[in-house]
Amino acid sequence: MLLSHLRAISKAATKPLSFLTFTKSLSLSSSSSMASTEETLRKTLADKLSAVEIQGNTVRSLKASSAPKPDIDAAVQALNALKLEKSSIEKSLQSLLSGSDSREAFRQSVVNTLERRLFYIPSFKIYRGVAGLYDYGPPGCAVKSNVLSFWRQHFVLEENMLEVDCPCVTPEVVLKASGHVEKFTDLMVKDEKTGTCYRADHLLKDYCNEKLQKDLTLSSDKAAELKHVLAMLDDFSSQELGAKIKEYGITAPETKNPLSDPYPFNLMFQTSIGPSGLASGFMRPETAQGIFVNFKDLYYYNGNKLPFAAAQIGQAFRNEISPRQGLLRVREFTLAEIEHFVDPEDKSHPKYTEVADLEFFMFPREEQMSGQSAKRIRLGEAVSKGIVNNETLGYFIGRVYLFLTHLGIDKDRLRFRQHLANEMAHYAADCWDAEIECSYGWIECVGIADRSAYDLRAHSEKSGVALVAHEKFSEPKEVEKLVITPIKKELGLAFKGNQKKVVEALEAMNEKEALDLKAALESKGEVEFEVCTLGKTVSINKNMVTIHKEIKKEHQRVFTPSVIEPSFGIGRIIYCLFEHAFYTRASKAGDEQLNVFRFPALVAPIKCTVFPLVQNQKYEEVAKLISKSLTVAGISHKIDITGTSIGKRYARTDELGVPFAVTVDSTTSVTIRERDSKDQVRVDVENAASVIREVSEGQRTWEDVWATFPHHSSTAADE
Amino acid sequence: MLLSHLRAISKAATKPLSFLTFTKSLSLSSSSSMASTEETLRKTLADKLSAVEIQGNTVRSLKASSAPKPDIDAAVQALNALKLEKSSIEKSLQSLLSGSDSREAFRQSVVNTLERRLFYIPSFKIYRGVAGLYDYGPPGCAVKSNVLSFWRQHFVLEENMLEVDCPCVTPEVVLKASGHVEKFTDLMVKDEKTGTCYRADHLLKDYCNEKLQKDLTLSSDKAAELKHVLAMLDDFSSQELGAKIKEYGITAPETKNPLSDPYPFNLMFQTSIGPSGLASGFMRPETAQGIFVNFKDLYYYNGNKLPFAAAQIGQAFRNEISPRQGLLRVREFTLAEIEHFVDPEDKSHPKYTEVADLEFFMFPREEQMSGQSAKRIRLGEAVSKGIVNNETLGYFIGRVYLFLTHLGIDKDRLRFRQHLANEMAHYAADCWDAEIECSYGWIECVGIADRSAYDLRAHSEKSGVALVAHEKFSEPKEVEKLVITPIKKELGLAFKGNQKKVVEALEAMNEKEALDLKAALESKGEVEFEVCTLGKTVSINKNMVTIHKEIKKEHQRVFTPSVIEPSFGIGRIIYCLFEHAFYTRASKAGDEQLNVFRFPALVAPIKCTVFPLVQNQKYEEVAKLISKSLTVAGISHKIDITGTSIGKRYARTDELGVPFAVTVDSTTSVTIRERDSKDQVRVDVENAASVIREVSEGQRTWEDVWATFPHHSSTAADE
Repeated sequence: MLLSHLRAISKAATKPLSFLTFTKSLSLSSSSSMASTEETLRKTLADKLSAVEIQGNTVRSLKASSAPKPDIDAAVQALNALKLEKSSIEKSLQSLLSGSDSREAFRQSVVNTLERRLFYIPSFKIYRGVAGLYDYGPPGCAVKSNVLSFWRQHFVLEENMLEVDCPCVTPEVVLKASGHVEKFTDLMVKDEKTGTCYRADHLLKDYCNEKLQKDLTLSSDKAAELKHVLAMLDDFSSQELGAKIKEYGITAPETKNPLSDPYPFNLMFQTSIGPSGLASGFMRPETAQGIFVNFKDLYYYNGNKLPFAAAQIGQAFRNEISPRQGLLRVREFTLAEIEHFVDPEDKSHPKYTEVADLEFFMFPREEQMSGQSAKRIRLGEAVSKGIVNNETLGYFIGRVYLFLTHLGIDKDRLRFRQHLANEMAHYAADCWDAEIECSYGWIECVGIADRSAYDLRAHSEKSGVALVAHEKFSEPKEVEKLVITPIKKELGLAFKGNQKKVVEALEAMNEKEALDLKAALESKGEVEFEVCTLGKTVSINKNMVTIHKEIKKEHQRVFTPSVIEPSFGIGRIIYCLFEHAFYTRASKAGDEQLNVFRFPALVAPIKCTVFPLVQNQKYEEVAKLISKSLTVAGISHKIDITGTSIGKRYARTDELGVPFAVTVDSTTSVTIRERDSKDQVRVDVENAASVIREVSEGQRTWEDVWATFPHHSSTAADE
Repeated sequence: MLLSHLRAISKAATKPLSFLTFTKSLSLSSSSSMASTEETLRKTLADKLSAVEIQGNTVRSLKASSAPKPDIDAAVQALNALKLEKSSIEKSLQSLLSGSDSREAFRQSVVNTLERRLFYIPSFKIYRGVAGLYDYGPPGCAVKSNVLSFWRQHFVLEENMLEVDCPCVTPEVVLKASGHVEKFTDLMVKDEKTGTCYRADHLLKDYCNEKLQKDLTLSSDKAAELKHVLAMLDDFSSQELGAKIKEYGITAPETKNPLSDPYPFNLMFQTSIGPSGLASGFMRPETAQGIFVNFKDLYYYNGNKLPFAAAQIGQAFRNEISPRQGLLRVREFTLAEIEHFVDPEDKSHPKYTEVADLEFFMFPREEQMSGQSAKRIRLGEAVSKGIVNNETLGYFIGRVYLFLTHLGIDKDRLRFRQHLANEMAHYAADCWDAEIECSYGWIECVGIADRSAYDLRAHSEKSGVALVAHEKFSEPKEVEKLVITPIKKELGLAFKGNQKKVVEALEAMNEKEALDLKAALESKGEVEFEVCTLGKTVSINKNMVTIHKEIKKEHQRVFTPSVIEPSFGIGRIIYCLFEHAFYTRASKAGDEQLNVFRFPALVAPIKCTVFPLVQNQKYEEVAKLISKSLTVAGISHKIDITGTSIGKRYARTDELGVPFAVTVDSTTSVTIRERDSKDQVRVDVENAASVIREVSEGQRTWEDVWATFPHHSSTAADE
């Protein structure tokens, strides 16, 4: 069951697939206890159904044989009791399975609020939109910009990272080296008549989920099989997926037409660079490659010293086959990526102790394999026990935890899940995803991977430019080295045009081969030697090559650095933040439910609204004065001089997640209201802006403000 | 001559061409006095050449006729004097024409510094790069991020603009409506043998410039002709360009092969959205369309009130035929655009008086036409005299001036140039470019246009969604309206299936047509009426339609707002800023020239460096302490504990434009050095970080710091 998180594609060389591939739907990430309840219910229901059938037959045969009325009545009563029990079990099963209904209702109310208040808008709406493309409207755009500013402060500035900004348009050669041209694909099926395309795994997933949720007569064996399919979905090959689709008789959702076999579709948006049409390019699927190709310059910029980190924020693109799940799976998105380059022989981190005592939900490989759930672990323990591969990886896991919780992500709905062995690329040392739980289930929002030397090596090979680091020894080290010296003159005489290939083959021997050859030549004088590039063996005699050991002085070690990569899906984090921040509360009159986003001031799109209590020129002037001071202080705010009731104005600003509201009800002092507590204090006009600035920028807490200033009890008119 | 700024393409409906099209090369934007000097020199040179020839002939004939030696000597002396004069004039002309040489030398030293310190890097360099794509390295990326933050503060926050964030991937329908699919093109020619592509106007321009700069024997008539061609370049049609290329015998630069006729090439990067390959899309050529298509929602968000502005920062793409001029003409760039929506009947601006007294270089249409140069004008005067079309446009010109000069653009190398009548789109009310002078000439960096209702109307028509504003009347207004009422029953009987089209045609009549029909029906009873959609006339009698005038009460005015659009090419502004900030000064020893960028703290990539004076653990600890306080305060800085001499470390940080350096030379106090004056003050360790924060964030000036703290005179070792 817990294999639900397996994802075959992440085993491919391309990394963003791993990052952007979705965790399974919520029904699968439910705890194992819930799963066992479901199984029990399904079994009990099946038993009850057959008991009802047997008892029904009993009643019928009693009636047919004109049995005594009391006997028949008793049998009917027993049947009715059984039916009642059956329908009660059905209800339990239904309510267990339809947990998703209440989640969907919650999601609908969040999404309605978000769209109505223009946090986001389906792009090109007046032209009926394009699936998977969204605009951030004014408050959403402000939240995004605040999240990115904080990311820069928390990571780039704090760690002195080298931030770069590379183009989205990328030539083919770069993405061939990275593996995206070959492997950045999803499997697709086509409606054989209309040509409409679907993601093959989505169709199979929908079929299984539908069956599991709606078909109460499903045997528990069949249910287990479907769950197994869901769990294995990402591990299925094209053939396996096709076979399952055939086996279950799955057809095109709209037309019910037959479907083609699955085949791979590359998810990159392709284009052509320059006017000739000959230079193929793609819109980058991730920002990381821009950093890797610049490694040499960045290493030089950092004084040729390791470790250092480079960072990039930018757009990435993914031409989804059929995007769903709103902001979570889109065709264009903002990534923020860090590539921390480190000596593979020393992955310690100087600031590791600053995070080692953090404790939060972790979901190590072993717990997943043995069917347990995520548990609270002290980070330092996870590193010292070797659950987390190394200090640097641990350090970033801790920093990501601090980043997300500061933004307002609920720490109880955040876990760090380790990739299972078969989820990881073969070269990766370790990989953890920060997963956030929302109405769509556990969503992978940040990937933190130790990718070893893979990316730099791939670009070194393809470009021919060595992307390596040097460690200068304080004193030269003496190293015993095997020296193979082919005697070219002799080899030339013997092999003529083949001389070069024989030389290369001799030089390519490893230490053992060379020592064996040396021994053989010394004992026999001539030896048959295989030259792969010639496809045959040749005779080598001892005049043709000398092999001996030498003591050499080495002044430096040359190596390819490992890279530890925290990669942030900004849109996904923001969407989860929206859900975690959303709640409703009754209006004062109790006649309606009001929406609130409890954003911390750090991310709130607007920090403060300023209202005159009533329409009045003097109050308006005070409001404008405060507004001006806020502008100078760089505090985003809104002034609302409409005649709407103050209660309605508070409701409007709560729905935008504005943490503070200044109400001008005199020309000398004003009230400041905090959004969640609805508490109000009274502050002099001249101090209002600076108090707002301090609480907005986190130099002061609301508790402190509450303790400092006189309290204002709101009158009935206020709310 | 002053037509040099004409740009034919900007007359097309598409706007970004206008914005991104380059002003002419420097040789053309030189003042008219320089041009007249050149003409005089060319004429004098031509006269002198013929004088030399005549005198040469005289000498030859004197020698041939064996004239007396004194006569011959005198003639030779006169010839030599003439030759001397000729070569002196040649030198003057050469030095006049090669003004560009020193500009190129300056540019080379800026660009070398920028590339060496990784302000920018040619993208994908290890794969030999892609023309027109650049990465911002760490300091460049920081400058860009500072410029964008200030833009948000100066425009979005200050004006309470509605910022949005739309995708780059754009479906074809949107860019058809905007005119880009049809008109966003450049004219291209191909090498007929190799297929290599060139921009037709660039080849012609290069030919003319080469001739003008290198060919001293050019007659002044020919020079005038070439200059005229340069001036008209952007007005040339495809045919005219082709004819000139043929006339001058221009061939492919590398191969000298013949060239094809010019033909249009669309500059948008094309791609395909979704897996079917049927939905064509483009990478957006500007960000503005994302705002226009959202007008309805944004207007609603703003409480259905005008004026309001929306803003967007984002990537835009332009598949240049053959990009040149480094960062100034690239295939992917960051735009920051504002769309200020306003009632066409009221273009006043409430904050206009705040900028009206600014005085700066403006280059109105009339001055350009009459051959004068840009002059300092008070903005308020330009608006009141009607040189600038309206207050809102004037307000934004003033705000752009403040924005650019705050960033560090030299106000004497900044001018606002008005578009000439034939440069502007037919619908535009007025248009001004903020042009900044750099080594490439006057560069259009910000376009500020009153585009009237064009864009909203185009999308209304194409999408069928009304993008309009409403003005509610305080009291209903009585308006005489013509009412046409087709009698559907009669029309149905007469025209059956065609009834609907006849009804539509009747309702579509304008006032005059309707009144004519009414009169005809009254006099004749029956009339032939043309129904275009049926392609024929039908007989209409007076029972079929009633037409009469009615007094109606109107409660609101419905109109399409005008849009005033300031559009900022962020990369161009940054490049010009680099040139304006760059200077060199001699090292203390006088043995080398050191590079400095005099960035204001606002844009400096790093605000402060912290050095221990000598390698010493105590000093290092103090340095780390100060660094930590700076991190907490959010001040970007760098700590340098290498053993390099303090002078070298200052030189390194000056070259990155770091405004302040803290040198730790004791455990109780440190020195703070200002980059440009090299002045140093002594500050207590515990105050150092807050002083740096205050001068970096502009709460305090360096002058104030200089006046407050004891001065530190640097010892010889320091610099």
